Amino acid sequence: MNSIKVKSPATLSNLCCGFDILGMALKDPFDIIELISKEEPGISIKHIDGYGLPSDPKENIAGVALQAMMDSLHYTKGFEIIIEKNIKPGSGIGSSAASAAGIVVAANELLNRPFTKQQLVSFAMEGELLASGSRHADNLAPCIYGGLVLIRDTQTLDIIEIKTPPLFITIIHPQIEIKTSYARSILPKDIPLKSAVIQWANVAGLISGFLCSDYQLIGRSLQDVIVEPIRSKLIPGFDEVKKKSLEVGALGGGISGSGPSLFMLSETLSVAKQVESEMKSIYNNLGIDYKTYLTEVGQNGVEVI
Amino acid sequence: MNSIKVKSPATLSNLCCGFDILGMALKDPFDIIELISKEEPGISIKHIDGYGLPSDPKENIAGVALQAMMDSLHYTKGFEIIIEKNIKPGSGIGSSAASAAGIVVAANELLNRPFTKQQLVSFAMEGELLASGSRHADNLAPCIYGGLVLIRDTQTLDIIEIKTPPLFITIIHPQIEIKTSYARSILPKDIPLKSAVIQWANVAGLISGFLCSDYQLIGRSLQDVIVEPIRSKLIPGFDEVKKKSLEVGALGGGISGSGPSLFMLSETLSVAKQVESEMKSIYNNLGIDYKTYLTEVGQNGVEVI
Repeated sequence: MNSIKVKSPATLSNLCCGFDILGMALKDPFDIIELISKEEPGISIKHIDGYGLPSDPKENIAGVALQAMMDSLHYTKGFEIIIEKNIKPGSGIGSSAASAAGIVVAANELLNRPFTKQQLVSFAMEGELLASGSRHADNLAPCIYGGLVLIRDTQTLDIIEIKTPPLFITIIHPQIEIKTSYARSILPKDIPLKSAVIQWANVAGLISGFLCSDYQLIGRSLQDVIVEPIRSKLIPGFDEVKKKSLEVGALGGGISGSGPSLFMLSETLSVAKQVESEMKSIYNNLGIDYKTYLTEVGQNGVEVI
Repeated sequence: MNSIKVKSPATLSNLCCGFDILGMALKDPFDIIELISKEEPGISIKHIDGYGLPSDPKENIAGVALQAMMDSLHYTKGFEIIIEKNIKPGSGIGSSAASAAGIVVAANELLNRPFTKQQLVSFAMEGELLASGSRHADNLAPCIYGGLVLIRDTQTLDIIEIKTPPLFITIIHPQIEIKTSYARSILPKDIPLKSAVIQWANVAGLISGFLCSDYQLIGRSLQDVIVEPIRSKLIPGFDEVKKKSLEVGALGGGISGSGPSLFMLSETLSVAKQVESEMKSIYNNLGIDYKTYLTEVGQNGVEVI
């Protein structure tokens, strides 16, 4: 086998109270990444999408992640990468993570799996570092492991898979730009201990809700008293989306990653559809372009196709 | 039935990262509380222990908690309370909570259970308010519900029972005095967001470890980067107890409540015994009097005997 094609899914990170520690893989949307081994050294990259991403492997997220893996193997031959991105860069649903995770999983398969999932996350983080300037795994880890994951410790990459009951996920991506670095810069360095206690009580409730399939507890725990009050101001329509979604029966939700995408979790498909319709109507009224997704938890993460 | 006797157990609160939100009932030690209904109105209290606690019902934790329940029922008759305290006041293992929880459970039984467990916690909190000056349920709720509980929200008393695998718990109570109010006063009002993220990652790991019976994950998650670095300085021997306990195989542990008692969780009885022996040797060397307990999770909380 000298070529492989994978689909690499979008991911939700944070999940309200789980800032910087939780991420969930989605079924849709996903990028398609093809990897072809070649005898000549080096990486060449071709995009068959319209996003104008860099094809210089040193400036490309997939290129940097793949190079990190090749360096670790002292690999002397090369690869050609063909990327068809469907997850719009800057959407807040893990577009860069999908590139970095997809390529390392693909290369690991082509090379007969020399690496563990944890090692793959570590290589992919080199790509994420290029994208966001910081080493975070909360989109990468779910993309590689599938499902919901907890990054208990980023230093040692202590990644814990958390089982979830079936969930329907509605996402709206308003076509506005929020830089991850800016969204991070407006967060306070210090927070009140009282707020932190509220946050970790909700984190505990959320994990318990997922593991015990307690939908109502999931809903009550999807609160974020630290980050959401600040970042939500960057997203027109946020308050109304949340209010209307809860009114039609969503369990809860908030900002995906650093935004601008918003997500809502629902127990049933019919509620998730109603949430989508409310979201559309709110952004139609605001006159802001958008794209919506109605999906489920992606249990497998990156998959060979 | 016009009299009842209950045993009301000690409790661990906080459990390292779960500051102010987690509590666990123990099998031992426990107070014994007898409640006798009488025709004459009012509460009378008799202690058959040597702690010199107030017998004026307005100044006694059990008295205040029982009065809150009687007020809610517009109860016109009275009660006699006989308390045999075995949990030393000020030990940090929920002595005041055992009084408040025990009395409200006993009265609820005598009166044919007019109240839910959640309502009983609410009455008992009136007693805790007298003891500590603040409305906390992290000792009361486990005492009443049994097992490990999460107080997701103190305002609405959203109390979640968290299943745990079998655990052996070693406790040492060094005979030094730490006032809860002082232990609270030395905590910072604000904490770094970075530390808070580490804390809630550990909370998430701890809940997952308990619910999935993953002992190693429980151990890795029993970390407290916020409160322990400050409060541990009030407890001579703390660092050494922690170091030696981990060396002999304890999963982890820390300060019980606001101290001075220290606790360690172990997967096996033999490790828990070794931990106890290490603890004793450390405090013998320090020349500080102590009492140790080797116990398990108290699955039932307050029990009628």
